[in-house]
Amino acid sequence: MPRIVDHEHRRTEIVMALWQVIHENGIDGVTLRAVARAADISVGRLQHYFDSKAELVLHGCRQIVAAAVDDHGPAKVPPGPAAARHALVDLLCAPLPHDEGFRMGAAVWTSYLAKAASDPDIAEIVTEALARRVSTLAELLLAARTTATGQAANNNNNNHNDDDDDSSVEALRLASISEGFTQRVLTGAMTPDHARQLLRTEVDRCLTRQ
Amino acid sequence: MPRIVDHEHRRTEIVMALWQVIHENGIDGVTLRAVARAADISVGRLQHYFDSKAELVLHGCRQIVAAAVDDHGPAKVPPGPAAARHALVDLLCAPLPHDEGFRMGAAVWTSYLAKAASDPDIAEIVTEALARRVSTLAELLLAARTTATGQAANNNNNNHNDDDDDSSVEALRLASISEGFTQRVLTGAMTPDHARQLLRTEVDRCLTRQ
Repeated sequence: MPRIVDHEHRRTEIVMALWQVIHENGIDGVTLRAVARAADISVGRLQHYFDSKAELVLHGCRQIVAAAVDDHGPAKVPPGPAAARHALVDLLCAPLPHDEGFRMGAAVWTSYLAKAASDPDIAEIVTEALARRVSTLAELLLAARTTATGQAANNNNNNHNDDDDDSSVEALRLASISEGFTQRVLTGAMTPDHARQLLRTEVDRCLTRQ
Repeated sequence: MPRIVDHEHRRTEIVMALWQVIHENGIDGVTLRAVARAADISVGRLQHYFDSKAELVLHGCRQIVAAAVDDHGPAKVPPGPAAARHALVDLLCAPLPHDEGFRMGAAVWTSYLAKAASDPDIAEIVTEALARRVSTLAELLLAARTTATGQAANNNNNNHNDDDDDSSVEALRLASISEGFTQRVLTGAMTPDHARQLLRTEVDRCLTRQ
């Protein structure tokens, strides 16, 4: 394996060990020693990749954002109404923990949310990710609506900004429902299937409203 | 102060010290020593009230549920459409952290949510509280709707169960939006005022839909 790939591969392994430690001991329970043990490497080797606990915890936050928020969004808005609707539902359902790995991910993400209340660096990463998620959802919603209402939306150019505003608010609603459902599925208060079904209904409702 | 009141008063002080420790060190960072220090009492005195760390952490979970979920619900559904709608909006807005004390409460609640993924005792307390919140919201919604649509709802007794089912699903949606908003306000991604405004709009929409 080329050296640069090996380096990134190692960092990924370390981040997964970090998440395991956060899942077991919380963010405040993270120590370089505990992460090194979970990654089955020495503390010296770990410090070759991450200088400090703070750097490792922040890198872990950026990576969980990448895994939980960014990876599931489409690189660009797909063409056609069905494709945009499909991508919208996928993005809303993506954070729902449907197996043990996802449960760990959702629990770690929730730990970072709790920590954001008292840690400005984590708050910055988390709020940027939450805002990005709403923007992506708003773009998908606008695409799905424009194609769904067809000519009508194009004929009414005066309302373009209103459409944008409305899509942003609707996207914020959809994102928040998805986030609320994710917490409920995580704690066992709701099944992932039920959450998925209600999110699909919610998207249909949004698309028929306009 | 009578002895029994004094006992409960002390327990409350200890629970508040516990929440402070959870906010600073996470649930896994809780030790009897740290809580005793935060409460400014000896470990021996603390053990007079709570035998073990596990008992204290579970009691703290029940108390945060009481503070965050149960206290804001009305004891019974208030009479009249306006009152039911008002109580509904209040209950939805209650968890939004609008000052530092509430931010700590919301962060501690979020820590318990994250811990529920791996701790069955905490999961049981949390899922019961989340289900109770949806039931209360559903009752308020049904009361606000029945009075809003007046005679129409009473004339259509065949649909009574459908109404119940629909109110439960709507209540779950409203609860989840409120929970998603709470996380967003906690991290600074949204202001409490904006969340309150959108929750009011959401309730109006629910009430005019039927």
